[in-house]
Amino acid sequence: MKQKQKIVILGAGYGGMILAARLQKSTVYRDAQITLVNKHNYHYQTTWLHEPAAGTMHPEKTRMKIDSVIDFNKISFVKDTVLEVKPEERKVVLENAELDYDILVVGLGSEPETFGIPGVHEHAFAIRSVNSVRVIREHIEYNFANYNKQDEKDDSLLTFIVAGAGFTGIEFIGELSERIPELCEEYDIPREKVKLYSVEAAPTALPGFDEELVEYAMNVLESRGVEFKINTPIEEVTAQGVRLKGGEEIHSNTVVWTTGVRGNSVIEKSGFESMRGRIKVEKDLRAPGHEDVFVIGDCALIINEEINRPYPPTAQIAIQQAYTAANNIKALIEGKKDLEAFKPDIKGTVASLGGKEAIGVVGSRKVYGNSASVVKKMIDNRYLFLLGGMPLVLKKGKLKFF
Amino acid sequence: MKQKQKIVILGAGYGGMILAARLQKSTVYRDAQITLVNKHNYHYQTTWLHEPAAGTMHPEKTRMKIDSVIDFNKISFVKDTVLEVKPEERKVVLENAELDYDILVVGLGSEPETFGIPGVHEHAFAIRSVNSVRVIREHIEYNFANYNKQDEKDDSLLTFIVAGAGFTGIEFIGELSERIPELCEEYDIPREKVKLYSVEAAPTALPGFDEELVEYAMNVLESRGVEFKINTPIEEVTAQGVRLKGGEEIHSNTVVWTTGVRGNSVIEKSGFESMRGRIKVEKDLRAPGHEDVFVIGDCALIINEEINRPYPPTAQIAIQQAYTAANNIKALIEGKKDLEAFKPDIKGTVASLGGKEAIGVVGSRKVYGNSASVVKKMIDNRYLFLLGGMPLVLKKGKLKFF
Repeated sequence: MKQKQKIVILGAGYGGMILAARLQKSTVYRDAQITLVNKHNYHYQTTWLHEPAAGTMHPEKTRMKIDSVIDFNKISFVKDTVLEVKPEERKVVLENAELDYDILVVGLGSEPETFGIPGVHEHAFAIRSVNSVRVIREHIEYNFANYNKQDEKDDSLLTFIVAGAGFTGIEFIGELSERIPELCEEYDIPREKVKLYSVEAAPTALPGFDEELVEYAMNVLESRGVEFKINTPIEEVTAQGVRLKGGEEIHSNTVVWTTGVRGNSVIEKSGFESMRGRIKVEKDLRAPGHEDVFVIGDCALIINEEINRPYPPTAQIAIQQAYTAANNIKALIEGKKDLEAFKPDIKGTVASLGGKEAIGVVGSRKVYGNSASVVKKMIDNRYLFLLGGMPLVLKKGKLKFF
Repeated sequence: MKQKQKIVILGAGYGGMILAARLQKSTVYRDAQITLVNKHNYHYQTTWLHEPAAGTMHPEKTRMKIDSVIDFNKISFVKDTVLEVKPEERKVVLENAELDYDILVVGLGSEPETFGIPGVHEHAFAIRSVNSVRVIREHIEYNFANYNKQDEKDDSLLTFIVAGAGFTGIEFIGELSERIPELCEEYDIPREKVKLYSVEAAPTALPGFDEELVEYAMNVLESRGVEFKINTPIEEVTAQGVRLKGGEEIHSNTVVWTTGVRGNSVIEKSGFESMRGRIKVEKDLRAPGHEDVFVIGDCALIINEEINRPYPPTAQIAIQQAYTAANNIKALIEGKKDLEAFKPDIKGTVASLGGKEAIGVVGSRKVYGNSASVVKKMIDNRYLFLLGGMPLVLKKGKLKFF
């Protein structure tokens, strides 16, 4: 009897989870030995993390035990941290073990992009994981609690800087602006003491979005007290706040860094050819020169040929890639040579602004306000449906629409 | 027409609130001009503060707007901080104003007693006010949140030292020991990582309590993971934790100081004769040599002649003193010379241990376990009843008995 092929999936993010869920529903789990590796025994929805970071949602709601969706009788699970891939040896080095593979799927996700700006790692927070957003929430609350205890009030405790007015930065400051009145009430702070800054180096907030939608979003956020500093690069993050280009300083005890992401550093450490940690994959999602390595999610670079620029790394694309990778892995296991080409099907993009506000594009239609907010929640629920069906939607979904 | 006499009450604690409530129910508010001075526009129940400090009760529940109980048409309210009394000039100096008085009532409450141990002010927390306990709660949660975010785990984040195993220290560590399992669940921390120390310089925990009750309390708390270090003076509090007598150090990011209280420093600043900030009052509660100054609550020192030691400052005594002071002020306003002597009527003392556990003495009976816990809640509710009747009990009372 021929030995079963070993499939190893690195990372239980959007891509890894959907892929594992697909494989356990197909014949692959019988014909091959599948192993899923992840740092935690839970999966979380990265795109929801701005909510627990601001404290408007409990972090528990953004995560699920992996075994609540993946059947560990069909797919083995290893809780460990990936250090390096050795593609020549078909081996993955984990912190506590090594794994051999015949087919590898890299779904390791992204890391914050700092553009080499000094002080980011030391002094800024990132919206990255359940662990990191719990710290942001508690840090914000601790600042509010400390303010009134001081004899000499330190206003930097109540000054919050969100670096980057892209998708995540806007979604986070939207949630935070909704939470501030509650925090003021809870900690006896006059609302006007709290300052919220959205600082963006590019010439516009929400680059890539339609101008009209950008203006709508800025109006909503400004009405809640957000001050925009657009076209304003940050030159340094310090223990006291940020120094902007031109020399202006804003004193703040809380800088949240959301200026975009790069691929996982494991990619570079493993010697794959990459750009900012992302591998420009073949049409079938394999790494060039590595017939046994698929890359999905934030570490896969795919060019949008219409505009000759990379697609931004989103959950939507990661999920679609997982479907293609599942089909292609099944084909390989069945000994087929013809693999499917990945074609992104961008259904739309909606950014929530906190409360019942959102903006975005669905198909070719612009949406904003409460209807966009409902669409956003449907998008989030749809993912849960793909992953675990209606039971998961009912358990973890966003069910308050109005 | 004769000018109305001016009565000024300093502090809206247990004593000041009950006194103001009594005076507005008598004829005094018509015959005199009464002013209540307090730092905040709210009153809080100091004896409940260990609960919001541990996070087992919302701080909102421990406080009430002063005007929800005191009618500001009958009693004027000044929100300000008392700096000094000038008894020779019959004047009170506030941060933003000065007030003249004909009759003064000092109900300013206590301050933490540090016994001159170095580092307490700089590095330890005190259970003192709504502002201070919100910081303790948030500090604890921030430690839990930070633990898992660190690459190298710092166990001092999960080590909690309560200095003092007296009434407040035991009540606080009791609540905290109840909260720890919840925090472990919330922040993915194994329970055995968390260390709770109760450190006491005296040869016993809960000095003054019956031995059998002390043992019951220690057993309950030890079963929840509290480690006692009795007969162990703390020599210094540092940024790293505490240094005990003999040299042992415990590394901790959280030291809560509960080794007892002294009278308010305003007493000494104002030149009153005092012992550790407390004035040994006459039988009618007036300060010796000051016929126009009453002292109630934690700044009043009264000797228990049975044992020739001062009564410990408690809410119970402050409330009873407020009744006597109200009667005596009414008598003075009516031109009478014969004032009532204050006689403490100690009905009992119950210390809660968190959850449904408590120990104490009611009358001459020892109580412990759930029945003591029910008694404790009835004591807390009785105060609310005295202050604002059943409506206040229903709004702010402890109504979950079982």
